[in-house]
Amino acid sequence: MVGVTLTRDAEQRKADAVQKLAEGGDAWVATASASGEPCLVPLSFAFLDGRVVLVTARNNRTARNIAENGQARLGLGSTRDVVLLEGPAEILTLGQLGEDQAARYTAQTGWDPRPDESLVWIVFSPLRVHIWREVDELEDRTIMQDGRWLV
Amino acid sequence: MVGVTLTRDAEQRKADAVQKLAEGGDAWVATASASGEPCLVPLSFAFLDGRVVLVTARNNRTARNIAENGQARLGLGSTRDVVLLEGPAEILTLGQLGEDQAARYTAQTGWDPRPDESLVWIVFSPLRVHIWREVDELEDRTIMQDGRWLV
Repeated sequence: MVGVTLTRDAEQRKADAVQKLAEGGDAWVATASASGEPCLVPLSFAFLDGRVVLVTARNNRTARNIAENGQARLGLGSTRDVVLLEGPAEILTLGQLGEDQAARYTAQTGWDPRPDESLVWIVFSPLRVHIWREVDELEDRTIMQDGRWLV
Repeated sequence: MVGVTLTRDAEQRKADAVQKLAEGGDAWVATASASGEPCLVPLSFAFLDGRVVLVTARNNRTARNIAENGQARLGLGSTRDVVLLEGPAEILTLGQLGEDQAARYTAQTGWDPRPDESLVWIVFSPLRVHIWREVDELEDRTIMQDGRWLV
């Protein structure tokens, strides 16, 4: 937006995205109801074995939407340094995620959701990833397609 | 998450949100297709006479989703300083927005979309606004309801 920006090549964008995923933090999570009502919330995530793992309340709209149609979109980073992930998601009860992954989620986020039975896991599998900062990076922003990195 | 955070009262949250809206910048915009597919993109906005005005390409999914079901959710700020807006949205062709508002959009965002006929306006009317930073502010996060500030 300001100053000199260098257009990153695809390899650099993938490296930056992989780092953002590995660092964890929060994602903007968009889902949709069957009637076409969008839902948007920020949730903490950990990236575990190629999947993005998040937690939410079993009864909220995000969980209900995913249970209904199995789709989510995740936005990481700022609006000027975007990693946007498209793909299927599923809801797992707290006991359904492997003990090892649950422990790593807790270690990464600093929060153990398992004592609270009102919560569920969201397990998101990126199929398509778009990575861009500014207009100059928009055209070639798709760096993962069909679950495979293009570089 | 870190350090000491002070739980803001409703008045302070409204003031902070009004300032964020007035400053403009980018919003995460979530929409949904009729088949329940979510869509998420960042777009630049200006806050004009109580409505959030954005621009996108007429043929992309955000514009098509809004044209179909008239709904959007907007996330402003970081994931730890959230202003989340729910409400109806409509698509206007470039000539349909008033000249005065179009000029103010251009002044605020530093970008005049009007020469590009592939673009359309999104005009979003906030009905419900949630404002929070951390867990301590989650419970009373609804500061606008039915289009009216609650404080």
